[in-house]
Amino acid sequence: MKSKEKLQLAANKLFIENGYENTTIEQIAQLAGVTKRTFYRQFKDKSDVLFDADNKLGKSVAAYIKEQDNSNSNYIRTGVDAFIDLTAPMFSAERERIITRYHIIQNHPDLLERELLKMFELTETIKDALKSAGLVDQNDCDTTAELIVLIFKLAFQRFVDEETKSFVEWLNYFFDKCSFLIDKEKTI
Amino acid sequence: MKSKEKLQLAANKLFIENGYENTTIEQIAQLAGVTKRTFYRQFKDKSDVLFDADNKLGKSVAAYIKEQDNSNSNYIRTGVDAFIDLTAPMFSAERERIITRYHIIQNHPDLLERELLKMFELTETIKDALKSAGLVDQNDCDTTAELIVLIFKLAFQRFVDEETKSFVEWLNYFFDKCSFLIDKEKTI
Repeated sequence: MKSKEKLQLAANKLFIENGYENTTIEQIAQLAGVTKRTFYRQFKDKSDVLFDADNKLGKSVAAYIKEQDNSNSNYIRTGVDAFIDLTAPMFSAERERIITRYHIIQNHPDLLERELLKMFELTETIKDALKSAGLVDQNDCDTTAELIVLIFKLAFQRFVDEETKSFVEWLNYFFDKCSFLIDKEKTI
Repeated sequence: MKSKEKLQLAANKLFIENGYENTTIEQIAQLAGVTKRTFYRQFKDKSDVLFDADNKLGKSVAAYIKEQDNSNSNYIRTGVDAFIDLTAPMFSAERERIITRYHIIQNHPDLLERELLKMFELTETIKDALKSAGLVDQNDCDTTAELIVLIFKLAFQRFVDEETKSFVEWLNYFFDKCSFLIDKEKTI
């Protein structure tokens, strides 16, 4: 295992056991079996361990969208499928870590701001991917990307709050829910 | 005019004329005809002038939603109408200030983070308002509030980028666009 992964694992273990506030960088480095210096080569600070600094998720989702046969141009479904393929296995396997991370972020306004900025970047990356995949109209691109990320956000939140459905089920649930609620408006 | 409004007007004038970076709190206070001390009684710092610290917009939208007759329960439309009634006149009258503000925020990651947090708070306020107005299911509330804010966000962005439509026209445009894109998925 690389030192970065060792540090992430150690940090998450300590956040769960002792709380985010009570965990020091010294303890994280010690548990990972590396020096504090190694920690600072990988992360700027303690909060950095919680974030995907390289926008890895955004890049994977973008690659997934570009790889699909988009001749049917059902882009919202493709985006939701990207999240199903790319995040669902990890979300099921690491539920405890994800919930802990979520609660840490909700309780620290500065971390919440950073999380919102990550979602903003994710949306921008998906907009670009849709454009590359052949969705030329800017308004279509923007709206589609925002709807994809919205469905992801809603599914993620409910996944954290409730264990009644898997992450995949929540993604499909909110895909249908958006469609249902918008449709309802028309029949009134 | 109250000193708070005087300071906001002065700050916006200076941001437009000299740029955000080049404007000092001293200059803002001077142009408003008050002391620096008065500035700091109203605002924490220069960036604070750009933000609606009291979530005034969120509270107004919430009040609007609660006041409507919701027996038809077309909540997304009600939310979009709230933005039309509450923000459209101001948006048309102060287009230059709004565009300047938008560009300042886009160019400063810390201000962008704060803006995203404001949108997050706005969404939470609308969720609560929908619940009070009779939308009992949590998933319906969350999805409806997110869709309302999404339509507002998309319309706002395009209003800033393009002068081809009024803010009201952009709101209605993206209301229809969301519906159209989601519908298209079904016919494939």
